Parts: sequence; structure tokens; C-alpha cells
Amino acid sequence: MKKIIDTVETVVDQALDGMVVAYPEYLMRVPGTSVLARAVPKEDGRVGIVSGGGSGHEPAHGGYVGYGMLDAAVAGEVFTSPTPDQVYAGIKAADHGAGVLLVVKNYTGDVMNFDIARELADGDGIATEVVLVNDDVAVQDSLYTTGRRGIAGTVFVHKIAGAAAEEGADLGAVKAVGDAVVANMASMGFALTSCTVPANGKPTFELADNEMELGIGIHGEPGIERVPMMSAREVTNTLFQRLVGELSLARGDRVAVMVNSMGATPALELAIMTAHLNEFAQHAGIVLERVFMGEFMTSLEMAGASLTLLRLDGQRATRLGAVADTPALRIMQR
Amino acid sequence: MKKIIDTVETVVDQALDGMVVAYPEYLMRVPGTSVLARAVPKEDGRVGIVSGGGSGHEPAHGGYVGYGMLDAAVAGEVFTSPTPDQVYAGIKAADHGAGVLLVVKNYTGDVMNFDIARELADGDGIATEVVLVNDDVAVQDSLYTTGRRGIAGTVFVHKIAGAAAEEGADLGAVKAVGDAVVANMASMGFALTSCTVPANGKPTFELADNEMELGIGIHGEPGIERVPMMSAREVTNTLFQRLVGELSLARGDRVAVMVNSMGATPALELAIMTAHLNEFAQHAGIVLERVFMGEFMTSLEMAGASLTLLRLDGQRATRLGAVADTPALRIMQR
Repeated sequence: MKKIIDTVETVVDQALDGMVVAYPEYLMRVPGTSVLARAVPKEDGRVGIVSGGGSGHEPAHGGYVGYGMLDAAVAGEVFTSPTPDQVYAGIKAADHGAGVLLVVKNYTGDVMNFDIARELADGDGIATEVVLVNDDVAVQDSLYTTGRRGIAGTVFVHKIAGAAAEEGADLGAVKAVGDAVVANMASMGFALTSCTVPANGKPTFELADNEMELGIGIHGEPGIERVPMMSAREVTNTLFQRLVGELSLARGDRVAVMVNSMGATPALELAIMTAHLNEFAQHAGIVLERVFMGEFMTSLEMAGASLTLLRLDGQRATRLGAVADTPALRIMQR
Repeated sequence: MKKIIDTVETVVDQALDGMVVAYPEYLMRVPGTSVLARAVPKEDGRVGIVSGGGSGHEPAHGGYVGYGMLDAAVAGEVFTSPTPDQVYAGIKAADHGAGVLLVVKNYTGDVMNFDIARELADGDGIATEVVLVNDDVAVQDSLYTTGRRGIAGTVFVHKIAGAAAEEGADLGAVKAVGDAVVANMASMGFALTSCTVPANGKPTFELADNEMELGIGIHGEPGIERVPMMSAREVTNTLFQRLVGELSLARGDRVAVMVNSMGATPALELAIMTAHLNEFAQHAGIVLERVFMGEFMTSLEMAGASLTLLRLDGQRATRLGAVADTPALRIMQR
């Protein structure tokens, strides 16, 4: 295992400290916890938003803490759900008196631990709601999930629900906004290589030199199919057509798209996929209104990518384009 | 070779198109060239700035085209200097009537081709100046260079010279600002793995499972030393002490630091390095005034990182923090 680490036990703890060193104007670490919260003072009366999950998906989720997105992010160990007490600490950090929305990717451990944390918050009189993200259309049930998994599309929920919270919407309304994002979104990924979880010390799976895996999750869970290496054009088309079908997109529909690197895949290759997407979308008469290309939800140093399509209406488009200022995603006033 | 591409011949051309699809509000491609220029209309009377070089270092350099940084970026094939006519097209795209500064990394091919392009521009009456970036302290001469190589610190030149150009400084002044950045900056990198140039189809070099290479360049050029794998703390300390010595930094000095992934190294590992840097800087009494952590100047999917230190004075600090709005680096009004 070749990694720039000291010990496998201290990876996440040290990295959280490093995030604060890199982004002191955005982030503070809640003492004694694995919670990164906004460095700026709380505003009373706004709905707070918390997300989180296992580490290894950076910039998710600490990179999305800041104006217009999250109030706090809770980090578990690599590919491991954060414990309920950590999530509870995140809820408290995000509470401005108007309740807290939890954005949870659909993995059994995350769902359970965020649920227990809600009970703890309930005991404190903090109202909570959950948006459960299950955008990965590849598999119905998986090693770690009942139902679909949550992957990169989670970032669209952060962004759009975050904009609604900044507008002053109440907890029920912010949850409804988040749920509507989930209902209008579909993702699918693929891998060219595995990644190595520090605590395991060896790659999670093996792929031959001429193989790729379609429908891979963000933890090296099995996908739906091992196939011979496809060209950029072929794999982009395969994912795009599948997602268009899942969302029943029709000519004239407006979408936002996320072309997400799983970690090791260079920007050059993402850009080639993006060029093809544009061509396929034009051919289908679908309007690519906003394109997000880069590393948004990674799997350590896995090579591969995922594609997310989000159907836009006027309000979602406005909220997606609203000013946000976080370490990993900044949308400036134009 | 596992890459998301169609053919090795079309990698750069397709990726340039994809960049424009992803960032239409920032970038346009000058027709028939490998030049990405600002999508917004020119402002007359401002000094233009052009950078460029081989592709494979994304987000360098197209990702730095935009307000407060570059006017145009010229892309060569992967790890190959752009031809003089391409550079010349970049100069023309960046010319607003006040001359054009070329930011050139010190590689023999780049220096030669940018030089020929200057002659072409001279024939058109476009005044040009060059800032030659040679921040890599690892090796004095290399496979591709006479003197030191230019690596990730180049991005600091883009940012600070870019701010001076936006202020309305004249060509000589913008060059002087850029030269002063180079004079006060030092970088050094290391690799855990090689990368694979598409046209070669196999890794440029091999490293054993327990080896790393110190002083690596951004094209897989040899470094200064193969050493057994070091811990994050050890390698960060090794680079930091070397750079502090090179710049003769003393207690009370203010610096900006860039912790740059070579491509495959995850943010988690960069953050661990950053946490150590903070500790070492505090111990040395050096003020880490600004930290840039992420992918700024990559080598395809190489695993490893580089560290850059830039000595700050009041003016460089102000210009480094000035508003910029580009695909890869956005600094918002606070």
C-alpha cells in the first residue's frame, strides 16, 4: 500500500485537522469530534443542514460546508459510517433554532446511525428531518444497502437544499426541496481500477487490464457488469442513455449534469466524456443547462467516473446557480 | 493502458472541447487552435497574460483562464510543448492593446517555441515579455531543461501577475511582479507511482512497492533520489526544510503554501501533509498566511505531491488574495 499517511488509525483525524489548516475562513472542527462546521458565526432562525458518512469521498462532505450548502459535515472512518454520537454533535453544530435537515446517503449503517442521532436530538428539542439520497440506478440492493445507493448526486442535494435554507424556508420546505432533487436525479458510475482502504492495505477488488466494471459504488462494492474496456464515447453513451431512460427525459427537458472523477481519473479524461455528453444531449434535444465537471464524490484513488443527471425546473435551476461559498464548490455572483 | 479516451491522437482536441462545454461562461476555444481564451469580451488597455505548455497537467493551464488570472492558455499535446503558431494564436487572443506577458515554465521546448511566437507577435506590433518560471529546486539540469524546471508554483505567478494586470499595471510592471514571484518561490515534489502518457501506452517509469522518488518533475522526469517509502510526516518535513533553506526563510516570515496533488493522490492524504506543514511552520515561526491545497498542476494520474512555498510581502499577499474567477481557482469577495 503506497499512501502518504503516518498510521492507518490516524488518517481521518489528521486529515480533518489539515482541512481546517487549509480552509480556516470556512471550517472549524468541533472539539473532540469528527465534525467540520462553518467557521462563521451562526445565523439564528435558519434551517441547518448536516451531511456526512464514511471518509474517503473527499471533497465530500467537509468540502461542502459553507455559505449556501452545509452547516456541518460528519466524518466516519474511511468507508465507515460515523457513529451516532458524532452525527449528534453535527446536528448540534448545525442547529440555529429552526431545525436541522440531515442529508443521508442510503447505506444501512448511515441510515441507522443518523436515525439514532435524530432520537438524541429529539431529546434536546431539536427538530430534524431526513433526505435519503439514492441516486445510483445501477443496482437495486447491494452489499451495504437495501434499495438504491446514494452517490455523487448527493452534492446536488447539498447545493439546492442549501440554497432553500439560505432563503429562509422552514424545515419541512427544505426537506421537500431536497426530496424533489432526489426524485428527479439519477447517477451511475464505473471503475477502471480499485482503491485501497488504508485499514485493509490491499485493493478491494481486481480488474484485468482490459476490463472495466459498470455500476460500481463509491466503496468498491460490486457493480452490475464486468465488461471489456470501452472507449470514452461508448461508456459515456451507455451511462447517458441509461440515465435518460431512468428519468424518462424527453426532448426539451433541461438538466444539470455532474461528471465526477472517482479519484485517479485525470481532468483530461473527464473533459473528453463531457464533450461526448454535449453531443449526445444535443442529439436527444436535452438541454445541458449546467455542467459540473471534477472531483465531487470520490473513492480514494479509484480510477473511473460517475455521471449524474438532474432534471431542472425554474426553481431548481435558480437554486443550483445561487451563490455558494465552500472549499470545494464556489459559485460567484455574476 | 486504462484510460477513458477514444484515440490517443484526439485526447487533447476533445478535452479542449469538453472544457468549453463545462465552463462556457469562462472559456471559448479560438477556432482552429488549441487555445482557450476568456469567453467574456476583451477590455481595452489592459496587459494580457498567456500561459501554456504540454497537456496532462490539468487544471493547468486552461483552468486558470478568467478574471484575475490568464487571458489565454495554449495547450500542446500531452507533455509536449505547444507549437509556435499555437502560442502566437494565444498571444493574439490575449492582446488588448497593452502588450502580452507570457508565463513560461522552464523547459527547453517551451522556451524555444514561446520565443519564436514572440517574434511573430513582434512582426504584428504586439509587445511581449516573458516570465520564466523555475521553481523546482530538486535538480539543476534535467532531461528537458537547462537550469531548474518550472512546476506548480507557476500558478502563483498566474494569480499574482494576473491581479497586477487587472489593476492596470503596464507590461514592464506586470513582468516585474511575475519575476518577483519567481524569485521568492521554491517547489519540490515526489512520486509514489508513475503515470502513463497516452501515446506511449505504458508507465514512464517503475517504482517498487516500497519506494518513492524525491524531486520528480511533472513529466515523470527522474528525481534526485529513490528512497524507501516515508511517512507523511517525514516526507512533508523533508520538503519543507529543503524549501525553507532554499528561500532562507526566517522566524516571522510570511508565506503562502501550495500542497499540490500530482493527480491520483487523494485529498485525504494532502490534508495530512497540510496538518504537518502547519505544525512545522509553527515550530519554525513561519506564518502560513494562505494555504492552497488540491490539484493545481498534475501529471496525469501520477500518485504523489509537490510543495511550494512563496515568501509574501504586503503587495504579493494582497494580490494573491484578490478576487479571481476561473474554472479551477475562484477567490471570492469576502
